[in-house]
Amino acid sequence: MMNSIITGTGTYIPSITKENIQFSDNRFLHVDGTPFENNNTVIIEKFKSITGIEERRYAKNNLNTSDLGYLASKKAIEDAGINPEELDYIIFAHNFGDVRANAIQSDILPSLATRVKHLLKIENPNCIAYDLLFGCPGWIQGVIQAQSYIQSGIATKVLVIGAETLSRVIDHHDRDSMIYSDGAGACIIEKTEKPDSGILSHAAQTFAKDEAYHLFFGSSHNGNNDKDVRYIKMNGRKIYEFALSNVPKAMKEALDKSGVEIAALKKIFIHQANEKMDEAIIKRFYRLYKMQAPKDIMPMCIHKLGNSSVATVPTLLDLVLKGEIENQEINKGDVIMLASVGAGMNINAIVYKY
Amino acid sequence: MMNSIITGTGTYIPSITKENIQFSDNRFLHVDGTPFENNNTVIIEKFKSITGIEERRYAKNNLNTSDLGYLASKKAIEDAGINPEELDYIIFAHNFGDVRANAIQSDILPSLATRVKHLLKIENPNCIAYDLLFGCPGWIQGVIQAQSYIQSGIATKVLVIGAETLSRVIDHHDRDSMIYSDGAGACIIEKTEKPDSGILSHAAQTFAKDEAYHLFFGSSHNGNNDKDVRYIKMNGRKIYEFALSNVPKAMKEALDKSGVEIAALKKIFIHQANEKMDEAIIKRFYRLYKMQAPKDIMPMCIHKLGNSSVATVPTLLDLVLKGEIENQEINKGDVIMLASVGAGMNINAIVYKY
Repeated sequence: MMNSIITGTGTYIPSITKENIQFSDNRFLHVDGTPFENNNTVIIEKFKSITGIEERRYAKNNLNTSDLGYLASKKAIEDAGINPEELDYIIFAHNFGDVRANAIQSDILPSLATRVKHLLKIENPNCIAYDLLFGCPGWIQGVIQAQSYIQSGIATKVLVIGAETLSRVIDHHDRDSMIYSDGAGACIIEKTEKPDSGILSHAAQTFAKDEAYHLFFGSSHNGNNDKDVRYIKMNGRKIYEFALSNVPKAMKEALDKSGVEIAALKKIFIHQANEKMDEAIIKRFYRLYKMQAPKDIMPMCIHKLGNSSVATVPTLLDLVLKGEIENQEINKGDVIMLASVGAGMNINAIVYKY
Repeated sequence: MMNSIITGTGTYIPSITKENIQFSDNRFLHVDGTPFENNNTVIIEKFKSITGIEERRYAKNNLNTSDLGYLASKKAIEDAGINPEELDYIIFAHNFGDVRANAIQSDILPSLATRVKHLLKIENPNCIAYDLLFGCPGWIQGVIQAQSYIQSGIATKVLVIGAETLSRVIDHHDRDSMIYSDGAGACIIEKTEKPDSGILSHAAQTFAKDEAYHLFFGSSHNGNNDKDVRYIKMNGRKIYEFALSNVPKAMKEALDKSGVEIAALKKIFIHQANEKMDEAIIKRFYRLYKMQAPKDIMPMCIHKLGNSSVATVPTLLDLVLKGEIENQEINKGDVIMLASVGAGMNINAIVYKY
C-alpha cells in the first residue's frame, strides 16, 4: 500500500498573551455555585503547578477559528512547497466552529474547511473541503482519514487543519477556564512511494458508554447567569482517571502495530492538556514496557500556549521541526508518536517515521 | 479492491406535521426588511408550485438532532441484522449540531456520533464515532468516507447517519423558512467480497471561490430583531443557477467512472431541495447524453417531508426500499444513483448496484 508523509507544517499563534495573574479578579465558583475557600492567588498557584500553564494565547476579536486555520494552512502550504490547487482534500478539525467575539452562537455554515478554501482562493472544484468533529484528537484523526484516502487511491495531497478559539466558549466563573486557549496548526500529507517512511500505524478509539459526557456544553457555575447560555465544561477528575487508564494502552497498540521497538521511539507529541496528566500518561506508557520514560521524550509548549484543543499537536510538531523549542529536534530516520485524548471520549495515536 | 454494500437502511420521520397554511400569519420580509406586495396566500401558492412542498415535519421539543439520528440508526441496524458492537465507525453528518427547542446555541460537544453511540449502548471502544460537516451532501459524503475506510482496510462495518432539526434555525420572517424540515436517515455499509455489486463509483466537489457563502448563517430579515441571533440563510437564485450548471456534470462524472450505460440507470435519488430544481437537474443530466429523462426515474418525498438537508437522501432511499412510495421500487441488479448539492457549495454523487 501507498505510504503517507508529512511534507509541510504550519502554525498560527494568536497575538494576545493572557497571563495567569490576569485571572486574579475572576469570581471562581464550584459547580454548585458556592465560592472557593482559597483566594485566587492560591487557586492560580495550584492551577499552575498541576497544568504547567503560565500564560495562554487569545485571538484578536477580528479573527475567527477559520481565519486562524487559514493562517496556519498558508504556512504549511509554503513549507511543503506545493501548489494549493493540487490539494485533493481539506480537512478541518474543530469543536465549536466560528464563534464571533462577544457572540454565543457557533457558525458552521458553510464548513470552516470551505472558508479556508475560499481564503486560499483555490479554484479546483475537485479539492473537497469538510469539517471533522472528534474532540481534541480531531487533528490526528484528520491525518488518519487523509492516510485512508491516500491508501484507497482517492487522494494524493491533503491539507489537515486543527484550530479553535476556546477563549470564546469559557465560563469566567469556572476555574477550568484558565486551561483553554486559542490556536491553529496545519500540515500537508502526501502520497509517497517510499515504503520505509511516513505513517507506520495508528490506533483510534471512542469511549461513549459511561464517558460520553466527561466533556460537555453546560451552564455557568454562576446560577444567576442565563441558564440557556452554555460553555465548555469538563469533569476534570474523571478525565484524568480515564486518560491514565486508556491512553497508554492505545499508544502501545499503535506502537506494537508499527513493529518499532520502544527503545527506537525518539519523541512523543502528546496533546497539551495538562502537564501533570501528560507526564503521568507517558510514565504509564513506558511502564507497559517495563521501562522508565527517557529524558526529553516529550516536548511541551503548554507553559506558554495553554490547551488549544485540536491545535496543540500540530503546533507542537511545527515548533519542534522549526527548532523553536529548546533541546528538542527531529532528525531524518527518527520514529515519533503523535497522541491525543479528548471529548467523545476519543483517543488516538500515530507512529510516524521521518 | 474490496467493495462496499448497503446492508440496511432506516429513517425517523418526526411526528409534527406543519402544513403550508400554518405559515399564513408569518410576516415575511425581503432581505432589506421591506414587506412583500403579495399576501401570504399568494406567496404560499407560489412557494408550493416551485418547491412542491405541501407540508413538512418538525421534531417534538424533547428530541434533538442526535436523538433523531439515534432513532433512524436503530432501524438501520435492525434492518441490516448486525450486532452494533461490530461497527468500526459511526459517521454522523449534520450542519447545526443539537439545537435545543427555544435555544439558539449549537451543541456539538461531544459529537453527535458519540451521543448516538452512547444511546445505542455500544461498549466496543474500537467503534470510532465522529461528525462530518459537508452541507446537505454530508450523508452521501459519509458513505464515500466509509467506502474509503473499507478499501484501505481499516473498517468492515460502518453506520452513516444524516440528521437535522432545521425548524430550530429558521428565520420566521424569511419565506425560505417554509422549505426546511426536520428528519433523519441512516444506513449500514459493509465490506463485500462480491465484485459486481455495491458502490461502483463516486464524484465529489467543493466550489468555494465565488460560491462559499450561497448558503450561510445570517441575521433575521426583520431589522428589529437581535442582529447577533443568526439563522440558516440562502441566496436561492444563485444556488439554482449553480446547481443547474454543475450538478449534472458531477453526476455524469460519477456515471462515466462506473462504466454503466445511461440506459441501465434505474433510479436517481436526489437531494430533496426543491422539486422544480431537481427536475431541471435531471433534465440537464439526461441532455448530456442527448436523452430525455425516463418517467419515474426520480422518486420524490419532498411534498410531504420538505427539505431536511442531510436526511433527505437516506430517508428517500429507505422509503423506496420499504415500498412506501407509490410506483417506486428497487430490484436486485438495479443500478441507482445518489446525488446531492448544498452548502459549501458541495456536490456529490454515487453510482450503486443492488
